[in-house]
Amino acid sequence: MTDLEPGLGSAISFVTLGVTDLPRSRAFYAAMGLEAHPRSNEHVVFHDLGGQVFALFPRAALAEDAGVPVSDATGALAASLSMNVSEESEVDAILQRAVRAGGRITRPASSPPWGGVRGYFADPDGFAWEVAWNPSVTLDAEGRVRL
Amino acid sequence: MTDLEPGLGSAISFVTLGVTDLPRSRAFYAAMGLEAHPRSNEHVVFHDLGGQVFALFPRAALAEDAGVPVSDATGALAASLSMNVSEESEVDAILQRAVRAGGRITRPASSPPWGGVRGYFADPDGFAWEVAWNPSVTLDAEGRVRL
Repeated sequence: MTDLEPGLGSAISFVTLGVTDLPRSRAFYAAMGLEAHPRSNEHVVFHDLGGQVFALFPRAALAEDAGVPVSDATGALAASLSMNVSEESEVDAILQRAVRAGGRITRPASSPPWGGVRGYFADPDGFAWEVAWNPSVTLDAEGRVRL
Repeated sequence: MTDLEPGLGSAISFVTLGVTDLPRSRAFYAAMGLEAHPRSNEHVVFHDLGGQVFALFPRAALAEDAGVPVSDATGALAASLSMNVSEESEVDAILQRAVRAGGRITRPASSPPWGGVRGYFADPDGFAWEVAWNPSVTLDAEGRVRL
């Protein structure tokens, strides 16, 4: 059965941990064998895992971006999963679908400072999903992200 | 610079959410367009995302498997990231590397009821990583998992 409505069907594009000490976490994952991508900087660290990005982002910044109080970001919202989409219109369509499915929008579709459009929804347990359209990120035919 | 020591270099094999109501979460993600894999059952739900598995597992079961008290599993340990490795010996090697890097082992390398060998470590913020060798799961040349 093919599902033609925009949804979560393709790959998870980003797994982002909301960390409390970015240099410490960057050093930890470097020591574990992960090389930071050149696009990393003092605000965010990216690791390109061949079609998926494993990112480290300060917890307060992640909470702010997700539209949740920092005090709530110690639980399920301490990390986020992202799905990048190829059409801007899919962002809001997927957020609306999440509401119908029993989730809630924590950040409506809007433009972050780094460009594109993104929004966040929380699943029934509060796990955070970002849905993002970002013209600076390439998606291959299988929906895998390339920085 | 090539890192020859076993580490986190390849893909994240599983992203597992520790959910509080498995049928509710299964229904939510079905409504979001994800089809449960036939190997799903009443204890666990798998979604095959073309090289990565997005799994739903009851939070208490995930905590038990990770070797942490359920009461701790409401925070960063409410979900886990897994890396499947192709050699059994890599499981313990990566766990020991995590300790040297500043993490801690929450579940030493050991055999779960479903076969293979796995262990868990927590990163500096307590985010849970499983390192697993599972002969019933296939890894392709890029380290992507196939159920």
